[in-house]
Amino acid sequence: MTQPQVLKGFRDVLPAQKRARDFVLRKLTTVFEQYGFDPIETPTLEYKDTIMGKYGAEADKLVYTFSDRGEREVALRYDQTVPTARFIANNLNDLPMPFRRYQTQNVFRADKPQKGRYREFTQCDIDIFGSMDPIADAEILVCTYAAYSAVGFTNLQIRVNDRRMLVATVEPYATNQVSVFSIIQSIDKLDKISPEDVTRELMNKGLSNVQAVNVLKDLDSIQPSANLEQIMSLAVQLGVPTEVLEFTPSLARGLDYYTGMIFEVCIPEFSAGSVCGGGRYDNLIGQLAGIDMPAVGMAVGFDRTVEAAEELKLVPIEDVTRLLVTVFDQTLLNESAEVAKVLRDRQLVVELYPKVDKLAKQFKYADKKGIRYAVVIGPQEKENGLVILKDLLTGKQQQITLDQLEI
Amino acid sequence: MTQPQVLKGFRDVLPAQKRARDFVLRKLTTVFEQYGFDPIETPTLEYKDTIMGKYGAEADKLVYTFSDRGEREVALRYDQTVPTARFIANNLNDLPMPFRRYQTQNVFRADKPQKGRYREFTQCDIDIFGSMDPIADAEILVCTYAAYSAVGFTNLQIRVNDRRMLVATVEPYATNQVSVFSIIQSIDKLDKISPEDVTRELMNKGLSNVQAVNVLKDLDSIQPSANLEQIMSLAVQLGVPTEVLEFTPSLARGLDYYTGMIFEVCIPEFSAGSVCGGGRYDNLIGQLAGIDMPAVGMAVGFDRTVEAAEELKLVPIEDVTRLLVTVFDQTLLNESAEVAKVLRDRQLVVELYPKVDKLAKQFKYADKKGIRYAVVIGPQEKENGLVILKDLLTGKQQQITLDQLEI
Repeated sequence: MTQPQVLKGFRDVLPAQKRARDFVLRKLTTVFEQYGFDPIETPTLEYKDTIMGKYGAEADKLVYTFSDRGEREVALRYDQTVPTARFIANNLNDLPMPFRRYQTQNVFRADKPQKGRYREFTQCDIDIFGSMDPIADAEILVCTYAAYSAVGFTNLQIRVNDRRMLVATVEPYATNQVSVFSIIQSIDKLDKISPEDVTRELMNKGLSNVQAVNVLKDLDSIQPSANLEQIMSLAVQLGVPTEVLEFTPSLARGLDYYTGMIFEVCIPEFSAGSVCGGGRYDNLIGQLAGIDMPAVGMAVGFDRTVEAAEELKLVPIEDVTRLLVTVFDQTLLNESAEVAKVLRDRQLVVELYPKVDKLAKQFKYADKKGIRYAVVIGPQEKENGLVILKDLLTGKQQQITLDQLEI
Repeated sequence: MTQPQVLKGFRDVLPAQKRARDFVLRKLTTVFEQYGFDPIETPTLEYKDTIMGKYGAEADKLVYTFSDRGEREVALRYDQTVPTARFIANNLNDLPMPFRRYQTQNVFRADKPQKGRYREFTQCDIDIFGSMDPIADAEILVCTYAAYSAVGFTNLQIRVNDRRMLVATVEPYATNQVSVFSIIQSIDKLDKISPEDVTRELMNKGLSNVQAVNVLKDLDSIQPSANLEQIMSLAVQLGVPTEVLEFTPSLARGLDYYTGMIFEVCIPEFSAGSVCGGGRYDNLIGQLAGIDMPAVGMAVGFDRTVEAAEELKLVPIEDVTRLLVTVFDQTLLNESAEVAKVLRDRQLVVELYPKVDKLAKQFKYADKKGIRYAVVIGPQEKENGLVILKDLLTGKQQQITLDQLEI
């Protein structure tokens, strides 16, 4: 029998990693709830027609599609935005409007697997649908700030820009050969490569040396739009510290569909780049669902955010004290069960070792699971109504009554 | 443009329903954690060979399979047990053994859709792998009891049986024509149809009248096996009230792979049948993963459990007080933002209405979202440093300072 394997580009999540992910997710979603966002879910499978043709030709190639047993052409969720557009169109009468929702589901992309990039990964989005007002943009910014603060990040940087200013600045340099979007794509690399390299890339695309230099110079002289100034001012009013917000005229964000404010969150101590980003996209839902629906939102880069939280030691190794009640032998099973019950009634996290085994093996098990304390009830303890509490970290052990057990 | 739809057999989860589901899931998993179960996740997609041929020919027809872009034959998760067997085989060195895990993921079955049965639904399992001892069975029973109690169910019934006793009782009546499993399948219906109807069904399958009557009579006279008695006694020691456990010699549970104790949980006030079930299956993991691995576990019928919790009004309509800070007009945006900040700093659940709109519309919005309190800051309130707190339930409103605001 050959042992079955995980599919290429997919992964198992082991307990410690799953707990870290759950910790970060719980912190984020608690804040989303506090800021009035409602949770929803959409199916993993949608009609292929709903999904395809929405992300561009390159992305379409990464969508998992197939014919189901009823000969329907279906596709796996590629992101959460397109299914949500379908969701809003289908459930319009049942939703409050403006509608603010958060959503945490896995998406699937048949991408080339590489370090830290998987074919199934978690997306975690907040969006406000149905408002064009700057206050909606500001609510997204402050909620993002509060959510990342809740995870424990203390040195956040939120880079903001107005996509329209960027487009207006770039437009005079665009030609039939070099599109506005192509120039923006190069500009977007300014935080990763040097201005000289960006200039060179723009020249390779067809701009003259003077043009390439000038477009970067023009960018530097941009001031925030009135709209962006109001958004930033409201965000500060709502609690984002002024120094966290950084107007970044070269910030482009990859996605073509943004129409106004765009932003990304960086954690300077974490080298791998931005951990989340978002912005305003007032036309997309209309294109997707055939209803006019301005929107502004944010998507958490969940894997990166968890990685950053772990790197900065924000994830508690053990957020609760755990106890293992050991089983001395077959004849003392009932006593161990009774002790486990008493300790669980105190709301402690208690595991009863689920078989009769050598004590040394049970201690080793506790150690492997990161359980610090073991409780032993041997014949002598049974007779005297006592238990042994063993601290597996220090090796110290004491014979006590259950009432004396305090950890 | 034709509006896109949800695929047949799939569903959108709207906010109220999602909150109910999250409430139940949180209650269950909090107990799973308290009882020492570790969370894991496996991929949604697996190699087709990993999944197929494990559930029987009928079930295989319900597995979603396709060729991916790399010409790999893949399948969507059909249940959590088979992927977990693969997980254990692949991660054996990194897992504590015995291994107790919980897992909550969606599974996919191309089943005929019907009321309350969907093609994508949530499974929520606990299992202990690597122990044949009755104490493991008892840990599953008590954790199940504690988890359902935590949701708020007060009138639980846990029916238990030993699959081996059932098989031994049925075996003398089996023939080439009527298999042991076929007889058990009929017996399994005793809680839904009358003994007369079961007798008739057995006769239709090929048993004589006398045989059909006798097999039911034999069942009635069975006593619990020594193994089952020990499991039940340990479960009681661990905290399951005696009257909750009910020895049910006719209990069969559908799945063919059980090898020992089997059980199901019923809620008498809830008519739709059992809400969860499980048992011991000592051979399955070995068959699946090629490693010897006894196992005992439980699977929550999540949709049914949520339905029962809602029917018995255990799901809080609104578990926290929510506030809407309204926006009076364009000139008072900053004041509303500031009030929202102050209230959020008090850890209240606060939403700032994300656009400038008529107040009546904003109250209506709060009402639709189930938000009870609205805060209004008009020109007069701004001048006097006050806010209006409006109770949308009673219609009562008062002009107060923010410090006086207590809800």
